[in-house]
Amino acid sequence: MIHRVRIASTGFYAPPRVETADDLAPRLGVTGDWIRTHTGVANRHISEEPLEQLGAKALRAALGDGPPPDLLLSASTSVRQAIPDTSTFILRELGLSGIPGFSVHATCLSFLAATDVAASLITAGRYRRVAVVSAEMPASSRRFTEPESASLLGDGAAAAIFERSAEGEPSCILACRMATHPEGAELARIEAAGVRKHPADPNTRLEDGLFTMDGPRLFKLTAKLGAPVFQGALADAGLAIGDIDLFVPHQASGPGLRVLRIFGIPDERVVSIIAEYGNCIAASIPMALAIAHADGRLQRGMRVALLGTGAGLSVGATILVF
Amino acid sequence: MIHRVRIASTGFYAPPRVETADDLAPRLGVTGDWIRTHTGVANRHISEEPLEQLGAKALRAALGDGPPPDLLLSASTSVRQAIPDTSTFILRELGLSGIPGFSVHATCLSFLAATDVAASLITAGRYRRVAVVSAEMPASSRRFTEPESASLLGDGAAAAIFERSAEGEPSCILACRMATHPEGAELARIEAAGVRKHPADPNTRLEDGLFTMDGPRLFKLTAKLGAPVFQGALADAGLAIGDIDLFVPHQASGPGLRVLRIFGIPDERVVSIIAEYGNCIAASIPMALAIAHADGRLQRGMRVALLGTGAGLSVGATILVF
Repeated sequence: MIHRVRIASTGFYAPPRVETADDLAPRLGVTGDWIRTHTGVANRHISEEPLEQLGAKALRAALGDGPPPDLLLSASTSVRQAIPDTSTFILRELGLSGIPGFSVHATCLSFLAATDVAASLITAGRYRRVAVVSAEMPASSRRFTEPESASLLGDGAAAAIFERSAEGEPSCILACRMATHPEGAELARIEAAGVRKHPADPNTRLEDGLFTMDGPRLFKLTAKLGAPVFQGALADAGLAIGDIDLFVPHQASGPGLRVLRIFGIPDERVVSIIAEYGNCIAASIPMALAIAHADGRLQRGMRVALLGTGAGLSVGATILVF
Repeated sequence: MIHRVRIASTGFYAPPRVETADDLAPRLGVTGDWIRTHTGVANRHISEEPLEQLGAKALRAALGDGPPPDLLLSASTSVRQAIPDTSTFILRELGLSGIPGFSVHATCLSFLAATDVAASLITAGRYRRVAVVSAEMPASSRRFTEPESASLLGDGAAAAIFERSAEGEPSCILACRMATHPEGAELARIEAAGVRKHPADPNTRLEDGLFTMDGPRLFKLTAKLGAPVFQGALADAGLAIGDIDLFVPHQASGPGLRVLRIFGIPDERVVSIIAEYGNCIAASIPMALAIAHADGRLQRGMRVALLGTGAGLSVGATILVF
């Protein structure tokens, strides 16, 4: 056990507008069947609201009738704008002032990195009730000339509230592992929105703001680098795969989720939301967690593995008792 | 004392190209004297290198002959690109693979937020040697029609290595405070580079990528909200202003630094690098710290106050024994 910290509550928000594979197919020059077969994504939700509203709605759902957090961590790849940080605007949506807010960014692994940060801040006695919010709007960065990636992405948001576990309560975080391998840095990227292809530089092209990936190489490198991190986290936790009640992976793609079968993990212990929501970047893991919590699959005391990969290439695994 | 953690070493890097107030003045329609008098910035350094090289050079200086870190935190407002995270590219510059990297973002307060995160991760036993790197290139976001802000900004990078303090060593972090006040969210901003004014949206204008601020209102709100955070951190540390050996403030502006006189702090106990480097956003505080460390003003055992404000509006104070 590394943190006597629990996820006290969860919440999620998916924007109401649904785009089906058949709706999207003509823009990509493929069929709806091709999209469903190749990516596993039947529907994705498309936001018509600002990013901070998505985050605020997920956070309100997680907070319920409870008190406000004493720290807000935005854990997303999507940002509202360069400055100020997105956490500021989520706080504004909630009418909160005087509470610190900042961001933790590790692309698709942002929620896992923020989980370790939130839990460490609580373990160290710095904060008591930390809200982690992942709000993502990658649909606006879809490259329609690249059907494989464009058909994956969807918008959504989720939040989790972290607190110290009560005396005698089994909830805790057993292990966190993460590793970044820059040899994969070019395999998944958006080149704009920074100083390299600056938004004020007339040489920056509109398409520099769109997501691109080398799916086959990314898949191969992820499978190779992910296994030791996952197995290392299990070893840190003193557990075997058979001890894990529920696997909550990043919803990278349908084929990506099926990789878990290699480890002998039965599909019924894997939370998969990719068919309905697509890949919601950093929001995928907390959305899957919140949805499983809401529908009763995730119960108190269960041993849960959060697994993910992200642009970087980074791989991460968190083992916790919910 | 909240963290038995020390800053083991520091380093900084300023790009070699210097732009003087007289060089810059004609682009702003003002004189060099106006710039020096109104902003306190005589010179600023302008990077012709990629962001990750600035960060890597500062980090190499901080690491010296020591071992690599077991975690790299990028603590900057500037990013290389939207995806992957800047930490990936700094790791790549250093030839490091397998070490986790992610970002902590709180605009100008990113280094203070990352200090608390790094120290908490060490206190919680998660990591042993954490590198925090702030690399900033705001010069490319200067709005030349707004002389007050455009004459402030400069490029630079700094790094600090955090480790657990040795037995009997006085080095520690005594107090950290931060507060975000979204009522100031519009006072300092760059509207582009996110989903609101997306880089792939043809309606996004080049000037949306430039920094703008309402200097007088920012100054007034900062002075009002900063004092209780600073005094609260001092109270948490059980210290008075007279107990602090060295003040390392964010280098917001010349007038901003002089506000410290209101608290009765003599100029000789304040590290000011604004005349030579300008406002380097999140890199300002660690650059000032590294420069004072290098020139001998900062000595082991000294009580140090890191103070800052950032877009958000956020205010923060960290009190430590170096």
